Amino acid sequence: MCKHSIEVCLSPALFEYHANKDSIAVMIDTLRASSAICSAFANGAEKLVPVSTIDKARKKKNEGFIVAAERDGYVLDFADFGNSPFNFTPERVGGNTIVYSTTNGTRTIEMASACYQVLIGSFLNISALTNWLSDQKRDIILLCAGWKNKVNIEDSFFAGALCSRLLDQDGFFTDCDSAKIAMDMWRLGEKDPLKYIEKAAQRSRLRDKGLDDCIPFCHTPDSTDVIPVYRDGEIVNIAST
Amino acid sequence: MCKHSIEVCLSPALFEYHANKDSIAVMIDTLRASSAICSAFANGAEKLVPVSTIDKARKKKNEGFIVAAERDGYVLDFADFGNSPFNFTPERVGGNTIVYSTTNGTRTIEMASACYQVLIGSFLNISALTNWLSDQKRDIILLCAGWKNKVNIEDSFFAGALCSRLLDQDGFFTDCDSAKIAMDMWRLGEKDPLKYIEKAAQRSRLRDKGLDDCIPFCHTPDSTDVIPVYRDGEIVNIAST
Repeated sequence: MCKHSIEVCLSPALFEYHANKDSIAVMIDTLRASSAICSAFANGAEKLVPVSTIDKARKKKNEGFIVAAERDGYVLDFADFGNSPFNFTPERVGGNTIVYSTTNGTRTIEMASACYQVLIGSFLNISALTNWLSDQKRDIILLCAGWKNKVNIEDSFFAGALCSRLLDQDGFFTDCDSAKIAMDMWRLGEKDPLKYIEKAAQRSRLRDKGLDDCIPFCHTPDSTDVIPVYRDGEIVNIAST
Repeated sequence: MCKHSIEVCLSPALFEYHANKDSIAVMIDTLRASSAICSAFANGAEKLVPVSTIDKARKKKNEGFIVAAERDGYVLDFADFGNSPFNFTPERVGGNTIVYSTTNGTRTIEMASACYQVLIGSFLNISALTNWLSDQKRDIILLCAGWKNKVNIEDSFFAGALCSRLLDQDGFFTDCDSAKIAMDMWRLGEKDPLKYIEKAAQRSRLRDKGLDDCIPFCHTPDSTDVIPVYRDGEIVNIAST
């Protein structure tokens, strides 16, 4: 059987060295964009429109969209709510198109669109994602959003978890050192992910801003079966169920 | 006491996001450039001149220099010997200036020269380097040469070892996620570094070319007290002993 490769790209600034236009890319920004996106679809959102700047978010608000946007932990004055996964409740997002402002996440998603397809991954949908990716018979690149182009712990850790799950299937291999590093992180932390994540700089940033209430939720596997896919500036859920 | 920060930069492509012109940078390319450079000084070399291209190496040979240069595992026809640390014997290098051709290593060293000072680090001089760096009272950036801008296992692993040693001193702290990832790798592999390195892609590349005889040597700590420093296109040993 022809096996497909898995690459892990630990920072968007390394994407060009891992990219393959025939690969499926999985965008990973576990704290908090990719977890929030999975939550939104789990709660019935119709579409998500990721935007990178406050100006774009404000323009969308003026066009009548529901907008999730914050900077430095404060909900922007024109926005409907902030960026925590907890804000994407069924009452707010069910059947709606939501504009989601995330600088790092949007830029990473747009970059990944050089690939064959772009999915959004988090612990929330890890099993559904593993199964879906296994069915595609394509090379995979797990693209960590990182933090201002630096490598971060939480995204690398999740990339290790997803890579390990994919390698447990029959159809994949990896000869990517970054994938092996990420899987070592996962092996070190899988028994107690929250303890492992404790040392991440983003863990401290969220705590300092009082935004860390969502961290256990963001590390809870399989709360949903959504498969968020980015197409033409929008994210939709292509899960068949 | 004012503590100084340690950053680990896992790839040259990430350098601009970690760089600080007041830091001391340590260039890490354990398999094999930084180990070869330490060996050369341990065996009495006067100076090393790193060059990035075959043309530059050939030109230096025509000027009368001793040249170490290989590509894809073959010693170049005009060169005196190849790039293995084992080639830098006292008979060949003692009292001499050696031109050393290494694409990745040279590029990384030149990039690092935006910092206050550039040192060359490997397991061979890890204790001497730790002591010297502790005396400087400056921020440190450990710059991994990686592989064609991708993160690699062997350099990250050594960065973790050196970072752990520095943090065992009193004068340093880190809040760099990459440093914590590298130290996790070191903790996983420190009891048996050769086993840990076994999964590195460069380990396989060197084996395939029959160039892996130097790997145990490159992971043997403290065979020398040299402190190689890059200045104005040349590397010299500034160890006081």
